[in-house]
Order: sequence, then structure tokens, then C-alpha cells
Amino acid sequence: MEVFTKENLLQVHERIKPFIHETPILTSSLINEIADCSIHFKCENFQKMGAFKMRGATNAILQLNKENQQKGVVTHSSGNFAQALSLAAKSLGVSAYIVMPSNAPQVKKNAVKTYGGTIIECPPTLKDREETAQKIVEERGASFIHPSNDIDVILGQGTAALELLQKKPNLDYVITPVGGGGLIGGTALAVNLFTEETKTIGAEPFEVDDAYRSLISGKIETNKTINTIADGLKTQLGDKNFPIIQKHVEEIIRVSEDEIINALKLIWERMKIIVEPSSAVALAAILKEPVKFKNRQIGLIISGGNVDLKNIIF
Amino acid sequence: MEVFTKENLLQVHERIKPFIHETPILTSSLINEIADCSIHFKCENFQKMGAFKMRGATNAILQLNKENQQKGVVTHSSGNFAQALSLAAKSLGVSAYIVMPSNAPQVKKNAVKTYGGTIIECPPTLKDREETAQKIVEERGASFIHPSNDIDVILGQGTAALELLQKKPNLDYVITPVGGGGLIGGTALAVNLFTEETKTIGAEPFEVDDAYRSLISGKIETNKTINTIADGLKTQLGDKNFPIIQKHVEEIIRVSEDEIINALKLIWERMKIIVEPSSAVALAAILKEPVKFKNRQIGLIISGGNVDLKNIIF
Repeated sequence: MEVFTKENLLQVHERIKPFIHETPILTSSLINEIADCSIHFKCENFQKMGAFKMRGATNAILQLNKENQQKGVVTHSSGNFAQALSLAAKSLGVSAYIVMPSNAPQVKKNAVKTYGGTIIECPPTLKDREETAQKIVEERGASFIHPSNDIDVILGQGTAALELLQKKPNLDYVITPVGGGGLIGGTALAVNLFTEETKTIGAEPFEVDDAYRSLISGKIETNKTINTIADGLKTQLGDKNFPIIQKHVEEIIRVSEDEIINALKLIWERMKIIVEPSSAVALAAILKEPVKFKNRQIGLIISGGNVDLKNIIF
Repeated sequence: MEVFTKENLLQVHERIKPFIHETPILTSSLINEIADCSIHFKCENFQKMGAFKMRGATNAILQLNKENQQKGVVTHSSGNFAQALSLAAKSLGVSAYIVMPSNAPQVKKNAVKTYGGTIIECPPTLKDREETAQKIVEERGASFIHPSNDIDVILGQGTAALELLQKKPNLDYVITPVGGGGLIGGTALAVNLFTEETKTIGAEPFEVDDAYRSLISGKIETNKTINTIADGLKTQLGDKNFPIIQKHVEEIIRVSEDEIINALKLIWERMKIIVEPSSAVALAAILKEPVKFKNRQIGLIISGGNVDLKNIIF
């Protein structure tokens, strides 16, 4: 059965609606003036637990049958998806097991605990992470849910763009940051299904430009170093979302760390909202290409607002 | 003529409406849970130039006749009112002269210049400030507009509460921070004119509790030291707003610097919005009095969001 249909994405939206916020779309006349275009910020920083990941996590759990829901869900993440799966599971009366490296920051562990997730620590390697998660699947019968490379997660993330397009149907572009590929994948699907002319653009730091390189080489590339302030974007694409990105994303624009910080300051200081550095990557991409975006109507998905304020030095 | 009437406040609102934003009212279920009451945040951090002062400045200029408008306006301020008067004057095609102490931070001077105000520097004493402003009044015929002790300014500031009460008519309390007395004065007037049961409460740092002491002594008190993070609240009351506060404010609640920082973190981290430390004083006051506010409906006026991010260390 084809899952990438209008009807299916609308059903996903109906399914998760009771458990998520319909987030506001904000504009800033000053930023529009600076960027010489009209930007519509879809503010997932105001989403429950502070990021779009709440959408995909909720959809993935709701797509399990009752029996599997009772056995719980498991993921490996030390970022927003760990918190999203914990909170979504809690709202639905499901157990969530979160595999985290033993050296993960205490603040991240605390956030997961606050939302009711059970943390399983493991040594800080990818192999250990995967093995530990697999063990929980085998021992408890829990369902593994990948943070970004899962069709139900991708469709859930696409509902942010769906809401944006329902309110703003005549956009020239929708732009999102690119990390593991769940947000850009879901967004590209929604844009493709619900518009004729709108194009999806990705934005990525030069420092972790794996998706940019993957689109050129035609295979999933990795990052050798991950020295970026945009800590949500260090992960790599997967075999479920990469084909969607290849098919439906027009271009990935890369930006420098200075450009990210400049965009972050603009949003904090001018819009008075707190967004993650990852979200600022998308505004930085617009500012980087003034000719391309001049006078255009652009939807920008603010991915989230979970920032450890101690780490932000302007 | 009685100026403190329903009709007059509504007229003030109509007069300034084309030049200000009707700011949103936000809530946070998590903060409501922590505070055990329902708080409706009237977000003047999203106001033009980032603070409620835009309202009073705009009304004061619009109340001048055309001839006086042509001669310009003058104030002494190095804070939000300097920027508000500059921007309001610019929108209305009026010249604004801002008297600032020569040692004011460059970032404040730049902000005034960005909004089109003309800065007149003077030595950093109150006497010099007043004399310099007086000189501009005499030489250029400009109209002096006080940042908080001016009836038109006070009425303008009261329109934030008016908008709040139009949307939320059944509040038990409206709470604002107390600095120079313009916001609390205008708010108390609006609450008194447009509600039967709602009470107005002020919030002040212990470190600058001049208004608290003024209400006890019955005369305007000053602060000997001004060691507070809430830099918008260092000023003192005036003879125009103090009688309003005496008549219509139920109580002023004082909070410590730690309580202010805790409330500021709560708002930034949980609501994902940037507010000034002065605004956090009002939330700190609610958290300080859990018995008084339990299960109450409370309107809280977020005074502004102009923060020098470099100075905020969590």
C-alpha cells in the first residue's frame, strides 16, 4: 500500500492532533527587511517538549497495535527524540526505554526522567548503543523506534509542514535544517503532496555537510568531524529518508558557524523567541542566497527551542 | 475634565492602535502546574521595539498639537523609553531628542540611533540630565515627555491591560513589575475602570523596593542602592502616578534576586520566549505567594524583551 498519499498524511495529522500543539506561524518585519523576502516561521519551538520530534514520536507509538504498545518502545538518542519519545509514551500510557551513552550530559538525562522515560546507559559507541537497544527489544518485546529513519516518524514530522501549507498555501519555498533526515523528509513529502509549485530546500552547516555530499554522490555519506554549534544536525541520513530527499529536495544550502550564530542572534534579539542553533541554520541559508530568495514567500520550520542556556555565549 | 474614564482610555487605545501591535496572550501549562494557578502572559516583549513603552510614547506624541509635534519631543532616558520615543516619533514624522548620560552603554546609544532618535549627551548626574533637557525645550520649543510620570504616557501604558481584559475579562489579579510607575499606574487605572472584582498587584525586587516603602510611608521614597538584575526597575515613582498607585494597587510583593533569576529561567526555558529580567519579577512574585494565588486566574504583563544577551549568564 502506498503510504505517501495526501489521505494518509491527513490521517497521520488527525491521529496525533489530540497529543500535539498546532504551533503558531510568526513573522518579523525587520527580518523580512534584512532578508528582502517574506519568511513565515512555523514555530515548533512552541511544540510540546519544545521540538517537532513530538509529532513523529507520537505517530510511531500510535501506529503500534495495543499489544505492542503494552510492551513499550525503545530508542537510542541523547537529544530531542529521547525526550519526545518519553513524553509521547507517557501521554499514551506506554513505557519508553531510552538508550543513552554513559557520558551523556546530566541535563539531558534529567529531561528524559522528567518526561517519564527509563534511561538505559551503555558505553559511548554506536555498536554498544545498537546492541543495548536490540537487547531491550529481545528481552521485553519493546518496539524499536528510530529517531529519524522510520516511515511513521517521517510522516509525523511532515505534519508541521502540512499545518504550514494549510495556512500559507502559496509559498515559493519551504526550508528546514537537515540532521538525520526525518524533518526534511517529512516536509518534502508534504510539500510534494499538497502543492504544485512550492520547492523544499535543506540547510546544513559546512561542518556537518553529509546530506549535501550524499545528494552529490548518490549514497549516504558520513561526517568525519562534528564541530558545529548546531548540535541537532550531527546525525546522518538513513535508507528510509534518503530516497525521499533525493526525489523531492531541490537543493541543500550550506552555511558557516559564524553565519549560524548571526542568524541565531537575529531570531533571539528581533523575534524575542528562543530557538535552537539548528533552527537558525535555516535562516542563515536564506541570508546566504539573497538573489535566489529575493521577494519570495518562504516557509521556515523552526525545529525546536531546547537550548542549554549555559552553553550559549553571544 | 476627568481623564480617567472608560471612554478616554478606549480613545487612547483607538488613537495609538495603528502604530502598535496587539500583542498575544500566552499560557504555559507547565508554569501553571508549578505555580498552581492560571497565568495569562500579555506579551509586550513582542511589542514594537520590544516593550510596552511604545504605547505611552505614541500616545504622548499624538496628544500634542501639530505645531508642537513639528518642534519635536525630548526625554531623558537610557532605557526602553529612549528607544520607544525615538521609534514612535519616527513613525509619526516627529523629531526626537534623547538626553543620555555620556557613560551610557554604546549598545543603548546605537539602539536609539537605529530608531532615528538624536542623542544629546550630558554629564552623568540627574541635575545635568534635567538641565540639558530643559535647554532643548527652551531652545527648540520641543515638548518634554517624561518616561513614566506623565498622564498621557500612563494612559498609553494602560492599554496593554485594556487589551488583556478585553480578551480575559474574569481575572482575579493583574500583576506587573513596578519601576517608574507608568505601567503599574496605567494598568491599575484600566483594571479599576473595566472590572468589578479584579485587583492590581505590583512586583518589585527587594533591592529597589522604593514603591513598596512609598506605599507604607505615604510619600515617594528613593533607592539608596540599585543592585538588581532587573535594570528596568531602578527608577522611582512620580507625583502623577503615585496617587493612582496609592488608590488602586492592592499590594506590592517583593522578591529576591535569586527568585528573579529562577523565574527568568522558567520563562526562557519553558515558554521559549525572551523577556527582560524586569518581567520575570512579576512571575517571581506569584511563585512567592502560593497561598494567595492558588487556583486564581492571573493576568501578568510581560513588560519587554530587550536584553543584552551578553549580560545574561544562567
